[in-house]
Amino acid sequence: MILKTKTNKRKIINDPIYGFVTLPDDLIYDLINHPYFQRLRRIKQLGMTNLVYPGALHTRFHHAIGAMYLMTEAVKVLQSKGIEITEEETRGVAIAILLHDIGHGPFSHSLELNIVEGIHHEDISSMLMERLNKFFKGQLTLAIKIFNNKYKKHFLHQLVSSQLDMDRLDYLKRDSFFTGVSEGVISTDRIIKMLNVVKDELVVESKGIYSIEKFIIARRLMYWQVYLHKTVLSAEKLLVNILKRAKELAGSGQILFASPPFALFLENSFTKKDFQNKPELLDSFVLLDDYDVFSAIKVWAWHDDKILSTLCKNMVDRNLYKIELQKEKFDKKRIKELQQKVCKKLKLTEKESEYFVFTGEVENRIYNASKVNINILFNNGKVTDIASASDQLNVDVLSKTITKRFLCYPK
Amino acid sequence: MILKTKTNKRKIINDPIYGFVTLPDDLIYDLINHPYFQRLRRIKQLGMTNLVYPGALHTRFHHAIGAMYLMTEAVKVLQSKGIEITEEETRGVAIAILLHDIGHGPFSHSLELNIVEGIHHEDISSMLMERLNKFFKGQLTLAIKIFNNKYKKHFLHQLVSSQLDMDRLDYLKRDSFFTGVSEGVISTDRIIKMLNVVKDELVVESKGIYSIEKFIIARRLMYWQVYLHKTVLSAEKLLVNILKRAKELAGSGQILFASPPFALFLENSFTKKDFQNKPELLDSFVLLDDYDVFSAIKVWAWHDDKILSTLCKNMVDRNLYKIELQKEKFDKKRIKELQQKVCKKLKLTEKESEYFVFTGEVENRIYNASKVNINILFNNGKVTDIASASDQLNVDVLSKTITKRFLCYPK
Amino acid sequence: MILKTKTNKRKIINDPIYGFVTLPDDLIYDLINHPYFQRLRRIKQLGMTNLVYPGALHTRFHHAIGAMYLMTEAVKVLQSKGIEITEEETRGVAIAILLHDIGHGPFSHSLELNIVEGIHHEDISSMLMERLNKFFKGQLTLAIKIFNNKYKKHFLHQLVSSQLDMDRLDYLKRDSFFTGVSEGVISTDRIIKMLNVVKDELVVESKGIYSIEKFIIARRLMYWQVYLHKTVLSAEKLLVNILKRAKELAGSGQILFASPPFALFLENSFTKKDFQNKPELLDSFVLLDDYDVFSAIKVWAWHDDKILSTLCKNMVDRNLYKIELQKEKFDKKRIKELQQKVCKKLKLTEKESEYFVFTGEVENRIYNASKVNINILFNNGKVTDIASASDQLNVDVLSKTITKRFLCYPK
Amino acid sequence: MILKTKTNKRKIINDPIYGFVTLPDDLIYDLINHPYFQRLRRIKQLGMTNLVYPGALHTRFHHAIGAMYLMTEAVKVLQSKGIEITEEETRGVAIAILLHDIGHGPFSHSLELNIVEGIHHEDISSMLMERLNKFFKGQLTLAIKIFNNKYKKHFLHQLVSSQLDMDRLDYLKRDSFFTGVSEGVISTDRIIKMLNVVKDELVVESKGIYSIEKFIIARRLMYWQVYLHKTVLSAEKLLVNILKRAKELAGSGQILFASPPFALFLENSFTKKDFQNKPELLDSFVLLDDYDVFSAIKVWAWHDDKILSTLCKNMVDRNLYKIELQKEKFDKKRIKELQQKVCKKLKLTEKESEYFVFTGEVENRIYNASKVNINILFNNGKVTDIASASDQLNVDVLSKTITKRFLCYPK
Repeated sequence: MILKTKTNKRKIINDPIYGFVTLPDDLIYDLINHPYFQRLRRIKQLGMTNLVYPGALHTRFHHAIGAMYLMTEAVKVLQSKGIEITEEETRGVAIAILLHDIGHGPFSHSLELNIVEGIHHEDISSMLMERLNKFFKGQLTLAIKIFNNKYKKHFLHQLVSSQLDMDRLDYLKRDSFFTGVSEGVISTDRIIKMLNVVKDELVVESKGIYSIEKFIIARRLMYWQVYLHKTVLSAEKLLVNILKRAKELAGSGQILFASPPFALFLENSFTKKDFQNKPELLDSFVLLDDYDVFSAIKVWAWHDDKILSTLCKNMVDRNLYKIELQKEKFDKKRIKELQQKVCKKLKLTEKESEYFVFTGEVENRIYNASKVNINILFNNGKVTDIASASDQLNVDVLSKTITKRFLCYPK
Repeated sequence: MILKTKTNKRKIINDPIYGFVTLPDDLIYDLINHPYFQRLRRIKQLGMTNLVYPGALHTRFHHAIGAMYLMTEAVKVLQSKGIEITEEETRGVAIAILLHDIGHGPFSHSLELNIVEGIHHEDISSMLMERLNKFFKGQLTLAIKIFNNKYKKHFLHQLVSSQLDMDRLDYLKRDSFFTGVSEGVISTDRIIKMLNVVKDELVVESKGIYSIEKFIIARRLMYWQVYLHKTVLSAEKLLVNILKRAKELAGSGQILFASPPFALFLENSFTKKDFQNKPELLDSFVLLDDYDVFSAIKVWAWHDDKILSTLCKNMVDRNLYKIELQKEKFDKKRIKELQQKVCKKLKLTEKESEYFVFTGEVENRIYNASKVNINILFNNGKVTDIASASDQLNVDVLSKTITKRFLCYPK
Repeated sequence: MILKTKTNKRKIINDPIYGFVTLPDDLIYDLINHPYFQRLRRIKQLGMTNLVYPGALHTRFHHAIGAMYLMTEAVKVLQSKGIEITEEETRGVAIAILLHDIGHGPFSHSLELNIVEGIHHEDISSMLMERLNKFFKGQLTLAIKIFNNKYKKHFLHQLVSSQLDMDRLDYLKRDSFFTGVSEGVISTDRIIKMLNVVKDELVVESKGIYSIEKFIIARRLMYWQVYLHKTVLSAEKLLVNILKRAKELAGSGQILFASPPFALFLENSFTKKDFQNKPELLDSFVLLDDYDVFSAIKVWAWHDDKILSTLCKNMVDRNLYKIELQKEKFDKKRIKELQQKVCKKLKLTEKESEYFVFTGEVENRIYNASKVNINILFNNGKVTDIASASDQLNVDVLSKTITKRFLCYPK
Repeated sequence: MILKTKTNKRKIINDPIYGFVTLPDDLIYDLINHPYFQRLRRIKQLGMTNLVYPGALHTRFHHAIGAMYLMTEAVKVLQSKGIEITEEETRGVAIAILLHDIGHGPFSHSLELNIVEGIHHEDISSMLMERLNKFFKGQLTLAIKIFNNKYKKHFLHQLVSSQLDMDRLDYLKRDSFFTGVSEGVISTDRIIKMLNVVKDELVVESKGIYSIEKFIIARRLMYWQVYLHKTVLSAEKLLVNILKRAKELAGSGQILFASPPFALFLENSFTKKDFQNKPELLDSFVLLDDYDVFSAIKVWAWHDDKILSTLCKNMVDRNLYKIELQKEKFDKKRIKELQQKVCKKLKLTEKESEYFVFTGEVENRIYNASKVNINILFNNGKVTDIASASDQLNVDVLSKTITKRFLCYPK
């Protein structure tokens, strides 16, 4: 609920997680009301995950505001410990986190590089921030500096992007809340109270070490139980295959039901350079959201192309691939047999059968000891990486990338 | 998360509200997997309310399963008190509540009688239940009897539909949870534990009287704070006006971007009789959901018709009508003036300006003393309506329909 | 958990309800550590209620700190709305609420005027505050003024003591939390966000009206379900009778096991004047807490006096009176018969049997329209009492004192 | 709240954690009402922990009922998976967990072997169970067999006592709830749903592996943050020293204020054999609870013995030892100096100064791989210990006993 009271322009948004979130600032209020940001209302944070956890319908809009709320809390805590953060910096770091996901496209991660192949969401975020900065007459300059780690106070960037940033704190908590996977719940309140800054580095005071361990374990749990849940994976792969087939058909001149901006990206393959040279591409991109994609899929379920229509019908009715997950490679002979069965049943070529039977890999590294660390500040003033500070967590395991293979095929 | 374990076909769905919901039955599992029921995944319980409470994205799918969960709890409680409910009745009443909303169209209540003018969602529910009954070879007969209050044990119907049914218990709790309006939270657990049956009537044991009072107050609070929140109202009226204009244009032969089933209902006005005579109409109806409507609105924002495109652009960017709410009628002169301003600004006729400046009424009656009552069972065996049993609640007020007028106009 | 960090003397206390409570002030830290305040750790907020709700063991210590926390929140909200509250006033009003219950004796309300007959806890609170003021060299002067409503800014007193003070907000929430009576939960967060001050009167902004209604209903529910729960009443009456008998015996020169300060008050009846004339009385009083009383009761269960030992044994083993509650007076003949049965069984005189069979009254008025009101501030600037502002609450009923009779007798 | 309804003897107890707990059985109802069990109302689960976490006042009474509740849930889950558990076994295992702590004395673990030196609480539990079995005419025989692991179905004992028993599940959750240390919260619901039995061994299905990891991490967190929190330790050591001094004085013939049963144990040192030979000793023991101890301490604060009175005054006013915790041994010279300071200040002998300055050790082993394991059941039917099954947890660390030294001295 956004209340704009007459008296003094306080604005409040209801969040089932944090209760009331007060917008700290008129500029932030205006940014939230900008169509670029409103678009995030229509992009689910967790893509197809709702097919497994029906509550997981929350959006990037809500997440971005939640992360901004945590940021204002973190800034207050640090200030109370004597860390200097000016009013302008407070606003800058809040805006940086608010806009950190502004460039995400429909179905976020699942479809990245599928709808728009040649450009990452980070690049689009940067372009959109620049546009907003122009629109708001340079008021976002500091925020952009912080976001790009070009600002002198490095720890402000760490609050926006690091292994313990406000982005992660919010999404872990939010995803846990809306999926109902209660073990993922982390104590953002406690972690934030333990933050401090030493030599321009964000640190956690040592009495917060157990909370950090729990944060890392919770993150791992969410990975295997939600983000890489095998049925979620199966749904995402289906979505990716649908897009692939649709682009194939569109590329060969077939007519596909689609909103005009979606049609544009179906029929063409744009590069990052294209985006830089033709500003109108970005204008089209910001019209895209989950609605364009899923409403098209619903219509494509009746398309003449049997592959496309079958895939889409399966999506609409939640008739997902059967999926197996294992560490080892899958037996090639078995894959072949599965493909041949599909070829026969649906009268497809071998190549086409790969839309229905396929393998792949997923990776997950919980903690990257070589990247920006989570640092623990001990009472004696020493600062140590959590990986060394914890006598419990198995650093070798944490730092290793875990790769699993999957095999998908029709039920 | 739906888990289908090999051992004994238990299935579990995660619900952030109740934790784990176990599906009691193979038939219920199969019903949930049917496309008719899967469609409810794409119909939000609270329509446009997410524009005010960003968390309110939960669907009729989740609600129906939640209500079914409460039903199984209620049945267990009643059985433990010696009320006979057979295994077949247990399944019947669970299916009846599971399917009670199956006929809802896109944006549920907000658009009822707007997309399909001539037929209520209850009628469509009945038709769909009959179809499912055929599909499942008569296994739904008892459920349908209970739903239609044709079954001898009247209290089973009351569990499905009355002023204290499992539908209300779930939606109040769920809407409160996802909006974050914590005052709406009701203690479903406690209320259900206090249920009993006297002479085939559902009653609440007297020690539950305060819980019932709180349930009624919470319901009233949710009405004014959520269901009839003025900004929600404003968004819904915008949606209704968009549909109205679209149908006007479609009726006059203009081409509108729309999925085929949506186009069908935009271009025609079907009656209940049409639905009865042409079964293929229902086939088209069950293809409709929130995606069809909102994805069309997004494209219509670029339509040539200035009225349609302005309304749609306003929706997409959350640029809602300003709205005033009051008990008295609004001054006609003021309305005229507001309309004339719009006429001038957008170059519209007076008639057309009514898409932008208009008044109307909303009604709300919290407790209907003349309808099926909430009965309180006292220790001495006497049963009394809550309206008389409570020395706190103001029955006159509760039973009175409260009517408020609203006035909408552009900001 | 009280953490006294070196850096800047922030101190944090864990509260299962509010999470972390930060002590705002060194003086408040010192007050909490004073023996007068530490004593509150040993005085349960809800006396014997834990015999009915086993979780209700929370103390006045925790409540006072919780109320202080809400006070600091309320002050922040009011300041953000432009209400001037100086740093000194902020501290004063926080101390006033922190110490508002400092004069409570063992088992709080249940035993008030039973252990120390001639003086109310408010008088003792005042005396103790004066002593603390001396000890802390006048630093409590403003707090005492606010507490006694002698300070110019009247609304500060209202935050401490009125029908919507921080005391009530905390105890309703806390009692609801620890008893597990979830319907009593109120949204302190929301209510506090809606506070404002108009003409030196505390008001609630009109959009908070539903929250206030719910607060009043929740309060009523807590009264009947917890504070005046009939088994709680039965336990409290047993406690009162034990004290009465003990004082009777002590008065007649019998030796009773008791701690020295408890013995002092058992053997003597002091008046308010006594307290004023002999400061050492207060020194003894502040040594008393729940432990003195209950540990004595445990020993008295083996006393030679049959009445005392029976009552005490019943208390220790939770063998409470049977209790009936009704609006009408109880039939005298029936009472007589019950007493005669006890006389015979325990060989008592009729007078003595009144320790086992007796009647009495309890009263409850939820909202006192003639006392300091809960005022609602409407958007047009008008301020109205909730009793008139609410179209739902039945003011006549709310304002009426509800009296119920009880009858106690052995099982 | 214990409700004994007339209709069918259902009884309900309010628990802030689980909501309503229904007592499954008349015998269990009678056991709870027995004075032996009612005594647990007066023994806090966490001893002096409330001096650090003020909410931690919950009792063994509430914990035992909570553990019994989880047991009934676990039994239902196992039965639904086809594991045979008869009605008699259901009752037996519920009683076994209900009574598992019945022999605990005042301040539970902190004072064990301090008040009654020669006998463990487990022995007293056994004696009390035997007495209750006689009282209830042999109805507890099966429960006692299960408790002592003498029953053929081994897994029933594991539910009562193992590394994943209902005792631990409840106390972790309960202690976390009442302290407000939210990271300790575990998902008992989810863990219980994942239980199964293979070859008479309790196992956790593999999809519960993350929950188990989180359970182990949460347990570790609770150890360092609550159970072995240094200020808690400091308070417990103070309590132990008080008892030691009191017994020393009582042994030398000094009169100490104490309830008769407490006096008996202060003045004598009984062995396990004494308890076996003189049944009246047990009669005295069951009269002891936290009240006897703390009310005596309050009076001893005014005792002539300076050591005793100083220690007791410090306890009452929460003026605890300063405490340091480290892995290494403390410097002997420093200890000496601290003792000498105390000797001078309080005029004590060196021996006596050890009541004020002393060192010691605490140990903590989170997971004991050599004891009864937590077994994980994989989909292929293989059962593996969590220590091997988890790629995350550091087994070596978990299995190692962590020892820390502490040093206490006056502030």
